[in-house]
Amino acid sequence: MSAGDRRMRWDGWGERPRGSSFPESGLRMLGAELGLSGRHTPSVALEDVGLAQSRLTDAARAALVDVVGARRVDDSREARIRRSAGRSYPDLIRLRSGDAAVAPDAVVSPADHDEVAELLEACADQRIAVVPFGGGTSVVGGVEPLHDGFDSVIALDLRRLDSVAVDHRSLTATLGAGLTGPQAEARLQSRGLTLGHFPQSYEFATIGGYVATRSAGQASTGYGRMDELVVGVRASTPAGDIETKAAPGTAAGPQLRELLVGSEGVLGVITEATLKVRPLPSERRYEGWSFASFAAGADAFRAIEQSHAAPDVARLSDEQETRLAMALASSGSATERIGKAYLKLRGHEGGCIAIVGWEGEVDDVERRRSVTRTILRENGGVSLGSRPGQSWLRSRYEGPYQRDALLDHDVMVETLETSTNWTDLMMLWGRVGDALRVALGERGTPALVGAHISHLYPNGASLYFTFLARRESGAEIEQWRAAKAAACDAIIAAGGTITHHHAIGRDHAPWMPDEVGELGVEVLRAAKRRLDPAGIMNPGKLLPDEEG
Amino acid sequence: MSAGDRRMRWDGWGERPRGSSFPESGLRMLGAELGLSGRHTPSVALEDVGLAQSRLTDAARAALVDVVGARRVDDSREARIRRSAGRSYPDLIRLRSGDAAVAPDAVVSPADHDEVAELLEACADQRIAVVPFGGGTSVVGGVEPLHDGFDSVIALDLRRLDSVAVDHRSLTATLGAGLTGPQAEARLQSRGLTLGHFPQSYEFATIGGYVATRSAGQASTGYGRMDELVVGVRASTPAGDIETKAAPGTAAGPQLRELLVGSEGVLGVITEATLKVRPLPSERRYEGWSFASFAAGADAFRAIEQSHAAPDVARLSDEQETRLAMALASSGSATERIGKAYLKLRGHEGGCIAIVGWEGEVDDVERRRSVTRTILRENGGVSLGSRPGQSWLRSRYEGPYQRDALLDHDVMVETLETSTNWTDLMMLWGRVGDALRVALGERGTPALVGAHISHLYPNGASLYFTFLARRESGAEIEQWRAAKAAACDAIIAAGGTITHHHAIGRDHAPWMPDEVGELGVEVLRAAKRRLDPAGIMNPGKLLPDEEG
Repeated sequence: MSAGDRRMRWDGWGERPRGSSFPESGLRMLGAELGLSGRHTPSVALEDVGLAQSRLTDAARAALVDVVGARRVDDSREARIRRSAGRSYPDLIRLRSGDAAVAPDAVVSPADHDEVAELLEACADQRIAVVPFGGGTSVVGGVEPLHDGFDSVIALDLRRLDSVAVDHRSLTATLGAGLTGPQAEARLQSRGLTLGHFPQSYEFATIGGYVATRSAGQASTGYGRMDELVVGVRASTPAGDIETKAAPGTAAGPQLRELLVGSEGVLGVITEATLKVRPLPSERRYEGWSFASFAAGADAFRAIEQSHAAPDVARLSDEQETRLAMALASSGSATERIGKAYLKLRGHEGGCIAIVGWEGEVDDVERRRSVTRTILRENGGVSLGSRPGQSWLRSRYEGPYQRDALLDHDVMVETLETSTNWTDLMMLWGRVGDALRVALGERGTPALVGAHISHLYPNGASLYFTFLARRESGAEIEQWRAAKAAACDAIIAAGGTITHHHAIGRDHAPWMPDEVGELGVEVLRAAKRRLDPAGIMNPGKLLPDEEG
Repeated sequence: MSAGDRRMRWDGWGERPRGSSFPESGLRMLGAELGLSGRHTPSVALEDVGLAQSRLTDAARAALVDVVGARRVDDSREARIRRSAGRSYPDLIRLRSGDAAVAPDAVVSPADHDEVAELLEACADQRIAVVPFGGGTSVVGGVEPLHDGFDSVIALDLRRLDSVAVDHRSLTATLGAGLTGPQAEARLQSRGLTLGHFPQSYEFATIGGYVATRSAGQASTGYGRMDELVVGVRASTPAGDIETKAAPGTAAGPQLRELLVGSEGVLGVITEATLKVRPLPSERRYEGWSFASFAAGADAFRAIEQSHAAPDVARLSDEQETRLAMALASSGSATERIGKAYLKLRGHEGGCIAIVGWEGEVDDVERRRSVTRTILRENGGVSLGSRPGQSWLRSRYEGPYQRDALLDHDVMVETLETSTNWTDLMMLWGRVGDALRVALGERGTPALVGAHISHLYPNGASLYFTFLARRESGAEIEQWRAAKAAACDAIIAAGGTITHHHAIGRDHAPWMPDEVGELGVEVLRAAKRRLDPAGIMNPGKLLPDEEG
């Protein structure tokens, strides 16, 4: 069993199932609003998963073993099942039903950049498709091991690329692609530094995955998105190595770095990245605020951001998400203890909850907090104190665990996200919510749709949607596809980006021409052809299928 | 005479020669240190400039006229001479000697994006090379109208692309590529907004030029470099249009925007850009500081930047630049009035001058100024009060005017720039200075080399060098090339970027493989081939000549 196998249960999130801890009242509410029958829908047992024979030929296997040794070419049943999917809703539906038909033919674990380079050469020779695999947390089909016309496909497990080199004076760290969030933080924090990147997938996702997908973390309003933290990248491609210069600022033509960042494994393998780091904060202040409405809260968030007074974490739930979060929060949680009477008095009954947080030196946090709070108050915000903040901090990575529990309860739960400018934000929010409610309602599975803002920019913000509906038994994928397509079409029609931080993967690829234009897609294809002439790198991802 | 002809004198900077206002003592110092003979070296008269016949065929001319009308296809002598060069030192040497051999065959002025698109189609058909021309302020050969195997070459004058659309709520403005800095600011400031982008070329350079070259302005530490201000771009290429989505944040794959930003006209023509803007500041505070040495000042600047307490403008001259600036400052200037005795007392005799400035709301400026000042003092800085700041503000665009005056006095004066991380900054500074002094000293023309830091990043800073030497009469270009090559080689060897904000143009193209790797160059070529199959766009720029 390789190191990676310790990390994620094969059919869900986390190391082992946590079970549901939803209060009965919340489940009753869901049952009534979604029309649940009370059906329990557990996952199959691992031994019942259907898996095709590995298609790796003896010659192909020998070529791989030649690079990494026999122990690092693993075509065992469990290793293959564990790399057969990411963690999207359709991924989970397929896994839980025992379908690992698209499993890789082997899992190959290179030791370092040079072994990655040699493996890519061997794979191009042997016509083996390559799926770079970090934490396997993609929710957009980014690690689905598609053969796509190739003889076989391997998952390239990057966990052994775990180097760390720190430049304390320049506040940068050069990190191996295979380090998970906690591994990287542990290495940095022992030197008094932090990357400050905490996406919901933090516990399992890797540095390489962050960079390859332009990840944004929960504190990215303050620390910056991953694409803002990347100073330089090193990548191995079938055509050779590319290393971008880690200069703080440059006018040396188009930025190749920005071609590799976000390349999702289709151009090559990002093996290490030089990232900005910060001194580990000595102070962290998180607190809750309430607003009369989502629009009012968004206006307040715009005001703090455009006054250069944004906190490091800024999250604003809309009315539905606020209601849902309160209903599903564990009994006795801080959120429940919020004085509802007080909010009613302030006209915020049925309003929206926001979480704001500051990290840094004590003086700096207090100074910035004071400025933010003044503006929030001027814009109708009511402080709820630190309890909601502490509660959010404790549960910040809980979303995907809750999803597993809801799946057991016959509930479809999926998230999607976008961003747009401030002018169009509320329009986009309305249209995507409507599209989801209509698409799922038409199928007889009425939807609950909530959303939040979680990243502020001077010119706009992100929108992150969560939607729930009763699973259409046996037609889960079709149901999901209908909802997803309706939401994506609505996002594009409203001028939003097809993804703010989940990336393109397989699921968003059909919308790439809408996102960047047909000619834009062609330019990316031209770059891919130069770096990956045989087309072995992560086939079926990022770029839409070519027109016949 | 087209609108553009009003703007820049044909053989130098600005609308008309300003002449020298150097104090006698400064000129004596230069004379002694550079070994000047007192020779006066004026420019030739415009009527004595040698110019080849336009090579535009009747068919080509007809195709161009067909798109823009006869009045907008100008092959007059003056129009062609005025678009025959940028404003690099070798450009000025050639112009001043009466050499316009590389003039474009015509100057064509499209009205809008659609006319640009039609022109590119016509030029591809007729085998006409196209040089997009904005303010013509390139100092790296970026607008040199090279034929490069094509039948003829036109300068595409973009001044008429002057549209302005403001989204006040999102703090963005969509600006036509042809607007000059002052034109854009006038349009924005009338609405209470500013772009805050003030490069030394501000008076003449255009929005399109800023974007195409990743320009950085004097206040970019605070407002951000142009590449940080660009939200979206629209470009016309020979293969069609590309418009990148103006989303505040996106994870939709590699960023095409970052392929177009910095593309220097070789992929197509940027016709408009959506840029972040800010409320016009109500308060501006600029002041001078003194440090015992360049290294001490750099440490202080690193401290303010890494404490998130950087001012909006932060400039630190090294010892030589400080001495040179004082010697050449107009008699009676504020800089001269600095109490030298006081500085001697503080151990700063022969030290370094810094200019720091804050812009914004009064309260915000005072709050930030107080934090910055505390850290500067803790790091050995001595405040010189507001006079040096006001003096710098008055003369912030004077450099290129002074260059013309020095050229008249037989002095070669050239600038070049780079950036690197904080750890390597002083090493890089030393090596580039040494390389210039050795290269010019070996030719019997001893050099004065000064430098300053003008842009701070958490992980590093820019370095901007100015060097002066006696002109090698008749061998000015060879002399320049030797110095330039020595400096560029030193920059690359020390790990710096070949350019922080001047761009690649023709002059830096040979160093592109050192900057981005051979494979990186090949990827850019692949993108160019897709967008500009005939290779008509700005030939000879950005990418090095292909190996035989």
